[in-house]
Amino acid sequence: MNNVTSTADPEGNREMILILTPLARFYQEYWDNLMKLTYPHELITLGFIIPKNKEGHAATAALQEQVTKTQKLGPEKNRFASIIIERQDFDPPLQSQNEAERHKMENQKARRAAMSRARNSLLFTTLGPSVSWVLWLDSDIIETPPTLIQDLASHDKAIIVPNCFQRYYDAKDKRMAERPYDFNSWQDSDPARKLGEAMGPDDILLEGYAEMATYRTLMAYLANDSGDAKQEIPLDGVGGTALMVKAEVHRDGAMFPPFPFYHLIETEGFAKMAKRLGWSATGLPNYKVYHYNE
Amino acid sequence: MNNVTSTADPEGNREMILILTPLARFYQEYWDNLMKLTYPHELITLGFIIPKNKEGHAATAALQEQVTKTQKLGPEKNRFASIIIERQDFDPPLQSQNEAERHKMENQKARRAAMSRARNSLLFTTLGPSVSWVLWLDSDIIETPPTLIQDLASHDKAIIVPNCFQRYYDAKDKRMAERPYDFNSWQDSDPARKLGEAMGPDDILLEGYAEMATYRTLMAYLANDSGDAKQEIPLDGVGGTALMVKAEVHRDGAMFPPFPFYHLIETEGFAKMAKRLGWSATGLPNYKVYHYNE
Repeated sequence: MNNVTSTADPEGNREMILILTPLARFYQEYWDNLMKLTYPHELITLGFIIPKNKEGHAATAALQEQVTKTQKLGPEKNRFASIIIERQDFDPPLQSQNEAERHKMENQKARRAAMSRARNSLLFTTLGPSVSWVLWLDSDIIETPPTLIQDLASHDKAIIVPNCFQRYYDAKDKRMAERPYDFNSWQDSDPARKLGEAMGPDDILLEGYAEMATYRTLMAYLANDSGDAKQEIPLDGVGGTALMVKAEVHRDGAMFPPFPFYHLIETEGFAKMAKRLGWSATGLPNYKVYHYNE
Repeated sequence: MNNVTSTADPEGNREMILILTPLARFYQEYWDNLMKLTYPHELITLGFIIPKNKEGHAATAALQEQVTKTQKLGPEKNRFASIIIERQDFDPPLQSQNEAERHKMENQKARRAAMSRARNSLLFTTLGPSVSWVLWLDSDIIETPPTLIQDLASHDKAIIVPNCFQRYYDAKDKRMAERPYDFNSWQDSDPARKLGEAMGPDDILLEGYAEMATYRTLMAYLANDSGDAKQEIPLDGVGGTALMVKAEVHRDGAMFPPFPFYHLIETEGFAKMAKRLGWSATGLPNYKVYHYNE
């Protein structure tokens, strides 16, 4: 019997959070950041899906070492409610491609379709009756505010996305700097809609490619250093590097389409599907999380 | 860690079956039929979703009485692995409409959209990592062969559907007879495809209405009294009164679209979505299950 809520005060209401991570490579910084989250760990379940290949075996071993350290040997207050590791049989979406190779347009469709299947499998397998929120967190997100869960939930939105940036060393200025990383959170545009209408039924729109100019408004470019971290904008597409979703949105049927859905797939298709179900997505342009720099 | 299979010999391979039932009214005959299934009960989990209204409360009470009888007081071999009851908050798809009212075309879209949400919520909430097969079984299916699970699985198909009939008293011939009941299992037709193409994006195709002649081949009419119970036919749409699905099809993302998906919703939309994911559906025209006669 269920009576779960998803509210702006999840801690006060003892709401269970399911953090889902498709894992190709294990980054210690990802785990360290996870450990620093101040949301009560006993209300957090972690779910991972890891490809059944050589790299996946290594990632699993590294992950399990940390799991043992935290769940068996560490202080009780650090322990998570439970940790589920799923190994995937189908073709891994996260082959060991380098960044340039991975971003090639022709590779994107297959890669993101496979990633969709991984996300769906993980979601359908782990979303139990007691979960209030699902936080999608990619394995290469290595820095977030420790209050990430409370901060995102406080907006009380069905789907909410922080802005994903990347720190790098600026050789010219000889100092650390940061740049936008995830371009999948956007507001739709007429040119993009028209591009879609002119496409074949199985073609997809992709963001961030010069040969397919969408003129969408990208959240990545809306960050403002002196801006309010709580500023909200409506979104039509969302990225999945960090993405918080009320469990009822998924329970309604919103998943990550591996097939072109209104010419969109994966997390962008998810936002569209959620919209078809009557939900909407919100972005936080000035609230940042950081991606690993390869 | 998962290593589940879905094979033609589920019993031999100790495969877990999840039987999912959206329940509006409790029929003792449904439960009695369930109890007679010869598939080892310790490999079966039952999941129910019941609306939070007066009728739902009554159904829950009746169900729980049987659950207690079976799980606590009955012989061990009759007990199921576990039983999950979910109460749904949103508008019940299964209002207490009489059959004529329920079948009105204008009521069908809203009713089946709500039913889709109920199915999705139940599915997303109960499909754990150890499940091999999902058997959708409506609460008004009161008679099946006791070997239903083994029989359906033996075909080793991604999605398989028996033919749903109804027994009735033939007043003219003064004897019991039977007639087709579920018309949602079909093979597509050119006229139906053309109807779809001419429709608005939010319109849906429905089967069994004179004002919308689809000329689809309906499995309901293909049953042959002397036919082979193992005869298979390919299907494009499926009904959900009894419907067996390999868990990996759902894990891939196949759900029951509450919105028009290629002008199809609910179980018919599910078949289309599964097809978009690369799976196909099979019907058994001569293998029958029976629906309650109101």
